[in-house]
Amino acid sequence: MAAEVKFMDPQVMLSHGAGGKASRRLVEGLLVPLLGSGELNRLEDAATVQVGRSEVLVTTDSFVVHPLSFPGGSLGELAVNGTVNDLAVSGAEPLVLTLAIILEAGLPVADLQREVEALARAAKAAGVEVVAGDTKVVEHGKADGIFMTTTGIGRLHPAADLGIARAEPGDKVLLSGAVGDHGITVMLERGELDLASDTLRSDTRSVWPYVKALLDAFGPEIKWMRDPTRGGLATTLNEFAQEARMKVALDESKIVVHAPVRGACEILGIDPFHIANEGQFVAIVSAAVAEEAEELLRSMPGGEEAALIGTLEKAESGIVLCASAYGASRVLDMLTGDPLPRIC
Amino acid sequence: MAAEVKFMDPQVMLSHGAGGKASRRLVEGLLVPLLGSGELNRLEDAATVQVGRSEVLVTTDSFVVHPLSFPGGSLGELAVNGTVNDLAVSGAEPLVLTLAIILEAGLPVADLQREVEALARAAKAAGVEVVAGDTKVVEHGKADGIFMTTTGIGRLHPAADLGIARAEPGDKVLLSGAVGDHGITVMLERGELDLASDTLRSDTRSVWPYVKALLDAFGPEIKWMRDPTRGGLATTLNEFAQEARMKVALDESKIVVHAPVRGACEILGIDPFHIANEGQFVAIVSAAVAEEAEELLRSMPGGEEAALIGTLEKAESGIVLCASAYGASRVLDMLTGDPLPRIC
Repeated sequence: MAAEVKFMDPQVMLSHGAGGKASRRLVEGLLVPLLGSGELNRLEDAATVQVGRSEVLVTTDSFVVHPLSFPGGSLGELAVNGTVNDLAVSGAEPLVLTLAIILEAGLPVADLQREVEALARAAKAAGVEVVAGDTKVVEHGKADGIFMTTTGIGRLHPAADLGIARAEPGDKVLLSGAVGDHGITVMLERGELDLASDTLRSDTRSVWPYVKALLDAFGPEIKWMRDPTRGGLATTLNEFAQEARMKVALDESKIVVHAPVRGACEILGIDPFHIANEGQFVAIVSAAVAEEAEELLRSMPGGEEAALIGTLEKAESGIVLCASAYGASRVLDMLTGDPLPRIC
Repeated sequence: MAAEVKFMDPQVMLSHGAGGKASRRLVEGLLVPLLGSGELNRLEDAATVQVGRSEVLVTTDSFVVHPLSFPGGSLGELAVNGTVNDLAVSGAEPLVLTLAIILEAGLPVADLQREVEALARAAKAAGVEVVAGDTKVVEHGKADGIFMTTTGIGRLHPAADLGIARAEPGDKVLLSGAVGDHGITVMLERGELDLASDTLRSDTRSVWPYVKALLDAFGPEIKWMRDPTRGGLATTLNEFAQEARMKVALDESKIVVHAPVRGACEILGIDPFHIANEGQFVAIVSAAVAEEAEELLRSMPGGEEAALIGTLEKAESGIVLCASAYGASRVLDMLTGDPLPRIC
């Protein structure tokens, strides 16, 4: 066992939880070698499990966002939508959730009630039922208010046939909306920077209605999906490109970035494509239906900013290239380090 | 919604996570009213979920034990066995687990590796596969080393027909082994007391092999099961008695309590029947097969201390009475407060 562990960092650092390169090293270098099973090795957002005659999809996530609430959302909503979206981008209809709560002694019960209410509302909106739960309390100073862990169980959409191996040169990259809103909203809410925005809100929501609409209409023409959360759009597309061994050629002008996000990123010197989203997804769609798929999303409330942002091309190895409106092209890399810890 | 919330404590306290009366008030007074669904309302150890043509059982638990390791076990083992046992006492064969880890920045990676290895070993021993995972990192001082949350999915044993409504006066109470080992082991390991024991070890283990043997042999004659974790044997039996509206008449001389546990409890002024166990279960068994069931458990390695400890009797309301060897009888109440926080 131990021979397979390649992760040699001496201490856990914030970047190991940021969803970028360091997270990947921890997961691939330590967790998967020790726990490795067929399903875990796939490193998909949700695992497929055979129970009796049925296949279920299952996924889990802990939520440690700080602060607990922010414009457009709060911990309880993230805890539903984050898990529901991992099922959705795996092509599964979210059915039920479990909820495990870790509380810090001394927490005002009003905060707990507010977050549980937010979770209940989000679960109702997403059409999932909370079926089992657990509560633990640790001493004051041994946790940060509330941590929530949700596990989601879903059922594969009958028309879903998703797999990275199905992607081909010529396929299009469809993005469901603007990027960067969630991460920058949380960061501004912390008040550590002399920045504010009246209009910026987290994008947290269930993406299942959009995913379902695409699968209903186009079935296997939808080839792969992922929600660009921690690590942002750039990390998600790099993971795709590396595994698919293809070039992802992006047209930067097509990717919607709201002005406050662009402004904050410029000041902070970070790339909006590295910022976490909590209500968006990327789909690889066959060229034949790409424009129709874009139109379908744009016709749905909340889908108005959906856009075809790029094309897959043959390549020796995985790379994401981003062409600016002025013709220049830059390599878009995965996130390194963690500019914005604890955004979900 | 808010009208149903009856939980009026202003702050979260350690006792709200101890599994006794305060935990019950939090769960029944706040969480269930806000999240309440058919399955959650049942407040069983595992929820039954219909997915396609199959029924799956699902349960979740967070583990925040302090210290991370102790004689006979560690966090990683608890995280497997605690969840596996919730499925087992629901009559379900544990199949897969998900694992969500919250890490404190600055944690030595060696500690993480040791706990993930412990988890992997325990999962192998329990016959479950880890199929999905998540890792979050919070700032140093915002968590306590490692918190793990596992969710288990299982399949109902074909001969299981468990339900509190099936219990009848005359049924026997079967206990799988000695009580109190886990909680007292963890407490002694903290070194806060001038007490030590060379022989005491946590009882953490999967109880599924024992449960399976009982269900294989006696099927519906096994009527109800529960693992007496937080809150101990007394809390588990009180919850049963209250819901079943029966008297549980215990013979104290039949309940095995190891000498170091008895000694520590006397010094601390706490009841060993309130101490958490992590590898035991209580079963309500029809009188007709009770002695055979006791013998079966006793014939299995690790089951030598199994014993029939009491009988169900008709009563106006739920009560647990404990008769000592000297003829005296005392009411055994649920745990109030939390003598030993963070034992799992």
